[in-house]
Parts: sequence; C-alpha cells; structure tokens
Amino acid sequence: MSVVVAAPQDGPLAMICGGGSLPMAVADLVRARGREVVLFPLVGAAEGLPVERYRHHWIYIGQISKFMRLARAAGCRDVVFIGAVIRPSPWHTRFQLRDLLLLPRALKAFRGGDDHLLSGMARLLEDEGFTLRGAHEVAPQILAPEGVMGAAQPGEADRTDTAFGMAYLDAASPYDIGQAVVVANRHILAVEAVEGTDQMLTRVAELRSNGRIRAAKGGVLVKAPKRGQDRRFDLPSIGPQTVEGAARAGLAGIAVVGGATVVAEADTLVANADRAGIFILGLPPGSSP
Amino acid sequence: MSVVVAAPQDGPLAMICGGGSLPMAVADLVRARGREVVLFPLVGAAEGLPVERYRHHWIYIGQISKFMRLARAAGCRDVVFIGAVIRPSPWHTRFQLRDLLLLPRALKAFRGGDDHLLSGMARLLEDEGFTLRGAHEVAPQILAPEGVMGAAQPGEADRTDTAFGMAYLDAASPYDIGQAVVVANRHILAVEAVEGTDQMLTRVAELRSNGRIRAAKGGVLVKAPKRGQDRRFDLPSIGPQTVEGAARAGLAGIAVVGGATVVAEADTLVANADRAGIFILGLPPGSSP
Repeated sequence: MSVVVAAPQDGPLAMICGGGSLPMAVADLVRARGREVVLFPLVGAAEGLPVERYRHHWIYIGQISKFMRLARAAGCRDVVFIGAVIRPSPWHTRFQLRDLLLLPRALKAFRGGDDHLLSGMARLLEDEGFTLRGAHEVAPQILAPEGVMGAAQPGEADRTDTAFGMAYLDAASPYDIGQAVVVANRHILAVEAVEGTDQMLTRVAELRSNGRIRAAKGGVLVKAPKRGQDRRFDLPSIGPQTVEGAARAGLAGIAVVGGATVVAEADTLVANADRAGIFILGLPPGSSP
Repeated sequence: MSVVVAAPQDGPLAMICGGGSLPMAVADLVRARGREVVLFPLVGAAEGLPVERYRHHWIYIGQISKFMRLARAAGCRDVVFIGAVIRPSPWHTRFQLRDLLLLPRALKAFRGGDDHLLSGMARLLEDEGFTLRGAHEVAPQILAPEGVMGAAQPGEADRTDTAFGMAYLDAASPYDIGQAVVVANRHILAVEAVEGTDQMLTRVAELRSNGRIRAAKGGVLVKAPKRGQDRRFDLPSIGPQTVEGAARAGLAGIAVVGGATVVAEADTLVANADRAGIFILGLPPGSSP
C-alpha cells in the first residue's frame, strides 16, 4: 500500500467527524505533524467530542454545500471522513437548495452496500475540487503494525483459526459484507454484517453463556479490509472497546492486517489486552484479502 | 438427489428425536405410509412432544449402547435423527460402560463443525449395523416443492436478492457455516452462524427498529443446504416460526431450495405466510450450493 503523507503546504485538513475515539486521535496526530485541522463534527453523531480544541463548524448530514463553502473559505482542499455515523435520523439531516441539485447523485450512492455510498460521496466531492484522503494517509501512526502488540502471544491453534478466518473473509469479500468473523477450532462462531463488530462480540458472549457455544474459552476475532476496498474510508478499526468485547466473549485474541487497520487509543488498547490476557496480532500487510 | 423410500419390509423406523415440530410430523408421515415407528426422545430436548402416541423410549444424550440395544430389540435397522438439540447439558448426558469404549470416537466427532459431529455419529452407528436415513428419505412429502407456496409472489428485486444470497452461500459453503442469510437490495443484512435462523431474524428486526437498517420493509431470507452436505441429516428447515420471524424482521419473503429443505407444518406455515403477505419460494432442486 502506498501512503501519501500530506505536507503542511497542502493547507489545512478538513475532517468530517462522526463519533467514537478516532476523530480526535487523528486530529491530534495531524496537528502534531504541523498541519492545521478544521473539524466538521456531524450533528447527531459527534456530540461529546472535545471539538472546541480546534477550529470547527457543526454540520448536519446532507449539508454538502455548507460544508464545501466553509471548507473552501478555510483554505482546505484535503478532506477526511472519520468516525461512526450510525443512524442518519431525519432530525439530524438538513438539505439546502444547492444540496437538492446534488441529491439525486447522493441518493444513487445510497443504494447498494456501504462501499457504493462512500465511493459515491468521494466522487461527488472530487468533482467539486476536493481530494478525499484516508486517515492513514494523514496520520500513518494510526495504523496497526505488523507483529504482536502487547504481552499475550497467539498459539498454533490461534494462528490456524486466524488463517481460516482470513480465508473465509476472502471468500465473502465480493459480497460487500462486514469484514469480521469469530473463529474457534476452525469453526465459524459468528459473522459480522450490518450489526457491527461490537454487537457481534456481544452475541458470541451470549451464545457462550447460554451453552450454544460449548467451549467456555478460546477463539479469535479476525478483521480484514475488503478486497479491493478504497482504503481512504472504511478501513477496519479496533479500539479498547473491541478488546473489552473480545474479553467478554471469552476470546483468546484479535487478528488484523498490519498497515491496513486503524487502531484507536493504542496505549489503552494494549493495556486492556495485557490485563485480559488477549493477544493482538498484526498480520503482514500483504495478507489477503 | 436420489430419494430412497423405505418399504414396510425394512422393519420399524427408529427415530432419535430432539425438540420442535419436525419429529412428530415426520413420524406421522412415516406411519401414514404404513411403516411402524419407534421414537427415542432425548431427555432435555424432546420434552413436550406427544411421544405417547408411539412406542417410545426416553434416552439421554450419550446413551449409545442403550439406544442400540432397544432399537435392535424392536427390530429397527434404519435410524433417523431429527429435531433440535440445543444444549447438551451435563444433567441430560449419561454414559454407560460400553459407551465409554465408544467415547473417544464420539469425542473426536465433536471437534470441528457440525458436519464433523454428525458424520462421525453416522459412521459410529453404521459400524454397528444400523443405517442412517434422512427424514426426506422416509417421508419425502416433508420437503419443500419447487415453485411458490402460498399466495404472495416474489418480485424482480426479490429474485435478484435471492440469487445474490445464493451466490454468497455458495462462496461461504466450504467454511461449514450456518447456511442462511438475509439480503435486501443486493446488500447482506445478516449472516447466520452458530446463533441459528430464528435468532438471526430477531437481530434483523432489532437493527430495523433501531435504524441501523434504513429501509423499514423488504429483503429475503435465503436458506440453502451446504454444498456437498450429507442430506441424511442437517437439511435446512423452515416452519411457522420462521415465517413469524421473517414477518417481524419486515422481510418480503423466504427462498429455499426445493427438494432439499424440510418444511415443518406446511399448512400452518402457508396460512401464516399468506396472512403476513410473505412469499415462500422453492428454487429448482439443482440450485447451487
């Protein structure tokens, strides 16, 4: 994967922010590299983030024209989308007259899987002169390294389960499905689709406590980017809550693709993993899918 | 698929029964064809079934020797496994001395996916002179027909979603995973693994009510046997509760493979589907996987 690191002369970075711990982590890393940041937190998603530490403009989902006007006025050409946006409720959605002209294309982008939505939005912004960047391009330190993070080491059976999970994800990749799976003893316990990783881990914990999964412990959460995925958005990510979910689900560890997975709050994540005895394995960056 | 219909001269049929509506439905169909039935309901799974309508012997999971002794005494050579066994709790498991000799092989069968478990048990019984039969061999009327059952018809989009789901199941089939998926607008909403179809449908209903799935209605539950699956056990099945789950999940319909899917209580299932406006589509028996 080639990583383009933006230099300060690229002007300030516009960050459209959802919720979770990633947006502020990326903003801090970008600023630490000497680049100015302008935040565009989304109403209904980014509440609770300490956005006041940066120049910022709250926007509603759908306010494409307002975003472009403010971002241009701030001198931003590069745009990053980051953070969780779970539920575009009608109360958190606004359109202006100019947006309505773009709406047919935006709606078209909404059909099909998430990939269609995001690549549609990217083309829309790029037609207007912006460049969409991945968080890993502007803050490469946010990516998982190759190798083991933390103290716990995967065993042979864990590595076999990881390879089995990666092979399944490779086979499922053309179907634009959530790219995470839980494997124990070469047996798939759960597959992530719309519900997301955290809810899938909760399900595994429940299936264990009600006896549907016989073994009390063991198994690996395997996450990988989709094959051919545009890595400027929607890279898989893990954070401290992923470790907590994996621990509650009785898993032995978490395997991701190094250089292709965002790690939120890495220090806390590793401390939690060490405390729970859970391994965090970064597979070689070339790992399929 | 070749279907072997056992004739009365094959002797009584031994049915090892778990829970749910299938065991009694199959027993009644077999008796209606003039063949005697001896039930072996499993403690902890088959409680509540009206087994007293047949000769029957309650057995605990693990009582392989007791089963074989009673089945031989009754003149049974053919054995059917049918019904749900969710949780082999220690209280519902018993072993005798002779079972302990078989135990290493039984435990070996427990490793790996469900397919390994079942094919291991089948070999074990066959080594002892029994023949394992599929429910569809002794009661072929239990299988879904090809074509539409009931009043609601699938639309073009539903057929596209069905084909998309079948293609995904085909790709996932080598991984010995639950063979059901929910698809809407060529987007996979949920994949079944250990949790089972009913719980997957409950998840889709929840994701709809909390807005994670945007559209309020639509989508198809697609179920298919695994590629290369031994159809003497573990054929996919649907019943009235599948229709109820699909209705609560806001789905448009259910697609299965005709001739390779067990339908429990077909009359009630069709009546419920008609009331809910849900289509039941039987794909041609040759449909992959």
